[in-house]
Amino acid sequence: MSRFKYQQLANELLQQINARQWQAGEKLPSVRWLCRHYQRSLATVQHALHLLEAQGVIEAKSRAGYFVKFALAPVQIPQFSQHIPAPNVVTVPDMFFDIMNRSGAFDILPSGPQIEPAHLTILMRHIGRALRQQPFSKAMYYDEPLGLYELRLQITEHYRSTGLVLSAQDLCITAGCQHALFLALKASCKPGDTVAVESPAFYGVLQLLQELELKALEIPSSPQLGLNVDSLEQALDKWQISACVVTPAFATPTGACMPAAQQARLLNLANKHDFAVIEDDIYGDLGFHQRPKPLKALDTQDRVMLCSSFSKSLSRDLRIGWIAAGRWSKAVARLKLVSQLASSQAMQQGIASFMAEGHYKRHLNQYRQQLKHQREQLINCLQRDWAGNIQHTTPQGGLALWLQLNEGINCQQLYLQCLERGIILTPGVMFSNSGDFNHYLRLSFAHPIVGSRKHALIELGRMLL
Amino acid sequence: MSRFKYQQLANELLQQINARQWQAGEKLPSVRWLCRHYQRSLATVQHALHLLEAQGVIEAKSRAGYFVKFALAPVQIPQFSQHIPAPNVVTVPDMFFDIMNRSGAFDILPSGPQIEPAHLTILMRHIGRALRQQPFSKAMYYDEPLGLYELRLQITEHYRSTGLVLSAQDLCITAGCQHALFLALKASCKPGDTVAVESPAFYGVLQLLQELELKALEIPSSPQLGLNVDSLEQALDKWQISACVVTPAFATPTGACMPAAQQARLLNLANKHDFAVIEDDIYGDLGFHQRPKPLKALDTQDRVMLCSSFSKSLSRDLRIGWIAAGRWSKAVARLKLVSQLASSQAMQQGIASFMAEGHYKRHLNQYRQQLKHQREQLINCLQRDWAGNIQHTTPQGGLALWLQLNEGINCQQLYLQCLERGIILTPGVMFSNSGDFNHYLRLSFAHPIVGSRKHALIELGRMLL
Repeated sequence: MSRFKYQQLANELLQQINARQWQAGEKLPSVRWLCRHYQRSLATVQHALHLLEAQGVIEAKSRAGYFVKFALAPVQIPQFSQHIPAPNVVTVPDMFFDIMNRSGAFDILPSGPQIEPAHLTILMRHIGRALRQQPFSKAMYYDEPLGLYELRLQITEHYRSTGLVLSAQDLCITAGCQHALFLALKASCKPGDTVAVESPAFYGVLQLLQELELKALEIPSSPQLGLNVDSLEQALDKWQISACVVTPAFATPTGACMPAAQQARLLNLANKHDFAVIEDDIYGDLGFHQRPKPLKALDTQDRVMLCSSFSKSLSRDLRIGWIAAGRWSKAVARLKLVSQLASSQAMQQGIASFMAEGHYKRHLNQYRQQLKHQREQLINCLQRDWAGNIQHTTPQGGLALWLQLNEGINCQQLYLQCLERGIILTPGVMFSNSGDFNHYLRLSFAHPIVGSRKHALIELGRMLL
Repeated sequence: MSRFKYQQLANELLQQINARQWQAGEKLPSVRWLCRHYQRSLATVQHALHLLEAQGVIEAKSRAGYFVKFALAPVQIPQFSQHIPAPNVVTVPDMFFDIMNRSGAFDILPSGPQIEPAHLTILMRHIGRALRQQPFSKAMYYDEPLGLYELRLQITEHYRSTGLVLSAQDLCITAGCQHALFLALKASCKPGDTVAVESPAFYGVLQLLQELELKALEIPSSPQLGLNVDSLEQALDKWQISACVVTPAFATPTGACMPAAQQARLLNLANKHDFAVIEDDIYGDLGFHQRPKPLKALDTQDRVMLCSSFSKSLSRDLRIGWIAAGRWSKAVARLKLVSQLASSQAMQQGIASFMAEGHYKRHLNQYRQQLKHQREQLINCLQRDWAGNIQHTTPQGGLALWLQLNEGINCQQLYLQCLERGIILTPGVMFSNSGDFNHYLRLSFAHPIVGSRKHALIELGRMLL
């Protein structure tokens, strides 16, 4: 206990800031409010604020009040091991089917409260209009093999603003990002080949490797730097790979962003060892502070296959994604045509006009703020309502936190126990082929952590005791 | 030249009936109209009609007039060869991509005149309503892995009326029939395996075999009986197959329907030699006179994978198909999830409510008549406006005729010559892996053969001289 009242108050405020009651850049309540709320004199409050200012936690802005200067260093989960297991045939747990059946991939409680984003009404209006435009022509003729030109044009325009220049001809529309990843792997690898993936990796990629009979070479990835390029370089001395799947921006589950220098080194390795780089950019548009430039922008040899979709940023129900497959473009387009023929022209037309009128950009600005707010709700809940030593990431974009629990905890058992209570987890084992991460958990903030969802989270916290 | 005027008139009428000016079951114009039109006396017309009645070509119905009694035997293209080439790696001509790029798969002139079916407006209203229902829930949660339950239920209801009993759990929704065929082949075969196909076969299947590195065993198929089961039986003595892809109802390009006895023999062979039967039922709903019972209805060992979609019967823009994969159901559902995750819930919901209100059934009744009429337009054009000895099928359902041209004609060259004139062909070589059918052509009646499309067809006829 601090000796003076102003020190006690300063400590109390610091804890609130740490718990993200107020976020970096946000204004603190007025001095008057603080006096009333904490039942302290004006002198004590001002003294406490000066102390925090001296500590560099807050800053005074003339005529505006006190602002939180920076978020304290986020709690970090430890760097992952440097051990690289040999390439291996992939066998992933069967629970994903079950999780998808329960709509639980990004929601521990699908019956929980929701916020309806305003843009959806506008998007549905655009798609509705597209459905009514020349319905006969759409009904009787298939989509262009590469997908609707207008939509491809809008997507290239969107990328231009991120620093990546593409032409509409470089893009092929797909039935989502998973479909794009499937096409990319199928075009660049043959059964038995080895593919480098992040560890932990997106489970959808591990499942694809299993279905396509490809071996996984798991490269350690950290929440700070993403794929460890040093480890990849070491591994390439021993093993040959046909492709490397990487999510440079807000990778799931760690939320990591690869620094530009690491991205450049990755491409150098790809050029030297002649492998395909499959870039999963699905979270790229969900950066809270900035939209990272895609890795493909550094590609000088047409060997990066950029894959993404609107499922995470706009709607999971559109089933519209894309791939810029570089040197594999022809094979990818052919494979798309053969495996699913076409995409819905009405959907594409609706999205294209939605984008052309600037709605996508406006929506993203609003949606990023909403996601950031939900991330705070989730972190607050973990820090306030969970007992025990929980380590978690603090991603600057994307949809999820990555949690390290106590070593004794078996998340597969936990998954089953939670199911009985109607809570759906995405356990760490789903993100690895080597049985690692069994005491890790991905927790999503795609939905507001309030009401019944917050209670479910608190219940989960109790189960971990 | 016949001796008497009534004989001349009878001959003239017979030619018109042969040319399908009036179809089987249709009423002839009134006696009064025939007098006026052919400038003949009442006695001559009556005499001519009596003669045709005596020949069994027409029949008199009391107080109703004269009706065409039956269609004369359609012009038949010869039975195909009995030769079965050894299983072979598939390489199909690259022209399909080009044809799809020109919207030409089922239309020689995509800019030609169209008829807008009334049902489309209703269907779009149903989809529009589905888009507006709970858009947030659809945007934030993926579809069930098997697809929307309500739609699966409607599809099983629809099949029940054809004599096939399925449960909603038996079905998995796909991104179209091509996607269903892809899943079926991927689930039942591994690279290097041999798959029996009809010869001529649907080009989409040949392309899938190529992409999946499967060998094709081409089994002769006739316009009368479809897949020749005798030939398949012979081939099975020599070669082992993992699957047989067959279109028992209105196969493209021949339009053949397999008789029930042949279907039963095929299943006996499948049971004996333990291979998967992949049933392409996409044209099943387009029978002009009846809807054949699916082959799957005879399946006692869960080895028939029924594949179909709404693309040919309702709209190509829905991207909704299905598969009832029997013993491969779990593998198929898993592969669907991994390769494309989900389908659009709004599309599925819209189709389901459209079907639930009986619109699909009503639409099919009207659409089959329209297609039959367009088949007549196409046959009339071939018989009246094309010189030379053209042999063609007269399918009782589906979307296309299969034409045998003079042996000297090279349809691949013809394809290129036609392209210069803006006419898009689907040459016979696309339907085979062994270079056969080079003087064959598929001509579709999916669109009305009038106006500029009819002129294009007449121009094509001239090019064949």
